[in-house]
Amino acid sequence: MNTLANDRLLRALAREPVDRTPVWIMRQAGRYLPEYRATRARAGSFLGLATNPEFACEVTLQPLARFPLDAAILFSDILMIPKAMGVGLRFEEGEGPRIERPVRSAVEIDALPVPDVGQALRFVMDAVALIRRELAGRVPLIGFAGSPWTVATYMIEGGSSRDFPKSKGLLYGDPGALHRLLGKLARATTDYLNAQVASGAQALMIFDTWGGILSPRAYCEFSLAYIKSVVGQLRRERDGARVPSIVFTKGGGPWLEQIAGIGADVVGLDWTVNLGAARSLVGDRVALQGNLDPNVLFAPPEVVRQQAIAVLDSFGPPKRADGTWDGHIFNLGHGISQHTPPEHVSALVEAVHQHSRTLRQA
Amino acid sequence: MNTLANDRLLRALAREPVDRTPVWIMRQAGRYLPEYRATRARAGSFLGLATNPEFACEVTLQPLARFPLDAAILFSDILMIPKAMGVGLRFEEGEGPRIERPVRSAVEIDALPVPDVGQALRFVMDAVALIRRELAGRVPLIGFAGSPWTVATYMIEGGSSRDFPKSKGLLYGDPGALHRLLGKLARATTDYLNAQVASGAQALMIFDTWGGILSPRAYCEFSLAYIKSVVGQLRRERDGARVPSIVFTKGGGPWLEQIAGIGADVVGLDWTVNLGAARSLVGDRVALQGNLDPNVLFAPPEVVRQQAIAVLDSFGPPKRADGTWDGHIFNLGHGISQHTPPEHVSALVEAVHQHSRTLRQA
Repeated sequence: MNTLANDRLLRALAREPVDRTPVWIMRQAGRYLPEYRATRARAGSFLGLATNPEFACEVTLQPLARFPLDAAILFSDILMIPKAMGVGLRFEEGEGPRIERPVRSAVEIDALPVPDVGQALRFVMDAVALIRRELAGRVPLIGFAGSPWTVATYMIEGGSSRDFPKSKGLLYGDPGALHRLLGKLARATTDYLNAQVASGAQALMIFDTWGGILSPRAYCEFSLAYIKSVVGQLRRERDGARVPSIVFTKGGGPWLEQIAGIGADVVGLDWTVNLGAARSLVGDRVALQGNLDPNVLFAPPEVVRQQAIAVLDSFGPPKRADGTWDGHIFNLGHGISQHTPPEHVSALVEAVHQHSRTLRQA
Repeated sequence: MNTLANDRLLRALAREPVDRTPVWIMRQAGRYLPEYRATRARAGSFLGLATNPEFACEVTLQPLARFPLDAAILFSDILMIPKAMGVGLRFEEGEGPRIERPVRSAVEIDALPVPDVGQALRFVMDAVALIRRELAGRVPLIGFAGSPWTVATYMIEGGSSRDFPKSKGLLYGDPGALHRLLGKLARATTDYLNAQVASGAQALMIFDTWGGILSPRAYCEFSLAYIKSVVGQLRRERDGARVPSIVFTKGGGPWLEQIAGIGADVVGLDWTVNLGAARSLVGDRVALQGNLDPNVLFAPPEVVRQQAIAVLDSFGPPKRADGTWDGHIFNLGHGISQHTPPEHVSALVEAVHQHSRTLRQA
């Protein structure tokens, strides 16, 4: 059983009554926090930070010390699975991730091992266990992974991309090979997320950062189908508590109904989606997470407050006329920018807590 | 009157019967063509090319000599209006556009002149007139401009951007100042497009490349409202022929109904939109343009053909059961990549022409 001091996140994820809207922030442990930058400097590098359970635990907890957030999320990276597959992951300062041995042909794909991630990524499981211990039941811990398609794009392109020419070249030129790569990634991702649950993760999120660059048909075939396969094989329960799953496709607004139908408990939304309309469409089937434009956090705190209220009002009071509840978890529509002033995050969290209480009394 | 040898584009734009689906390609005159690169080398620079009517005419006509396209589009750049406003436009090799004196504060915005674009951008009007003469009625000529919001982002950021922090900082921090900037740009854009019509443009397109990065509310208030204002003031007719307008917001799929309601004749769609669903939603009000993923053109010609057919089939036969016609103009969902093999474009145009004839006989 969960014996959480603050179980608002899990209640909202399960569409149960909750006294105010829970809030956490994608990439909440990150470069916009001076204490994160200090730990990163001690770790020597991004990978030094992410592969060391003590450092990973330390930065995971930092935002919770500053802000009354309703969840912690494991500090890690969506490219840990390629790392475990041995393709050579590096992070260049200011350049983002690099894959030293990109995977572009059927031969390269078929030679790729499906790693024993519980073994190869033991440090992640150790970090999860350590964070759970340090959290001591204050708030739940979210584990995560990238979607097979999103992770595949980095492996194919060799790093970040703007137009993903090589990934789409493979998708249109040799779809069978791409399917085999995605199948391997889906197996590894399933194992990886289930191992996180075994180590203590209380909810799981799948980040499909690049699903939105696909056509509707290609999205369903090459991204959503594999997310569905992963979600369908996740452990649903641990120690008698349900482990909910959140799926977030950036740019996935047009495909909301399809995404809501794959068996996940929650759909994450970016800021281009009208939250009220999304609730009307799928709010009786899944909880919704989102969706403030992260760039709002560059505006003065008073504007941050207004815009946070606008997001909450767009969802509306979670209690329905028939007495049942819809679920809303407040978040940004994408990861927080490294240039965000931390005091604007304070204003945001405070506004969400205050206004969402008011909304429930209205 | 138009006396065009090939008026398929104008007929499809007007949702009139047409024997096959017309096709043109965003950025069809561009770097993927060796003859373009040769002219650009002679011109010395991108701006040397774009500001010289003879060079601009030459590259505008190049793709028509290679492919049986159904339209020409003026070769120019969406940043000609900022250029006319005197903010210092430069193009760095491989870096994209730079604005030397970005406009970020209310004071800077209020000091900006609304230029006499017919005068300041005389070279564009001369290019339009020259292209019309050289086209000699083969196919229609499309004129264009950027949307006020899209052009504003370049003026505020100082160039291209990924997350548009300064533009959104202004949007959320001083929306009144941003409205004044957009108002000035809308006036200049209206004058600019009407001057293109006066010089011979037979259809007009507004490129809203960055509308899709906004929240639904911000999109309506800061991008769509100004596009509507421009569209509402465009010359609708010249020499007895209707001058249709096309509006394209990249990432605008979720707001299709709103976009279809501003008075434009055609809505351009990117490849994330299901064309058949878009037709069901708004096909009785506007024609639709799009929407093949430009990256399909990296696949082998046979795959290009299949994917082009899939787009045409998604729209379906344009003739409705009641005998009226819906309009489809085949295009990519975004500008063609500079790395595209030109022979794949041949395969595309041929497939569109062949299959769309078949579709009409089915």
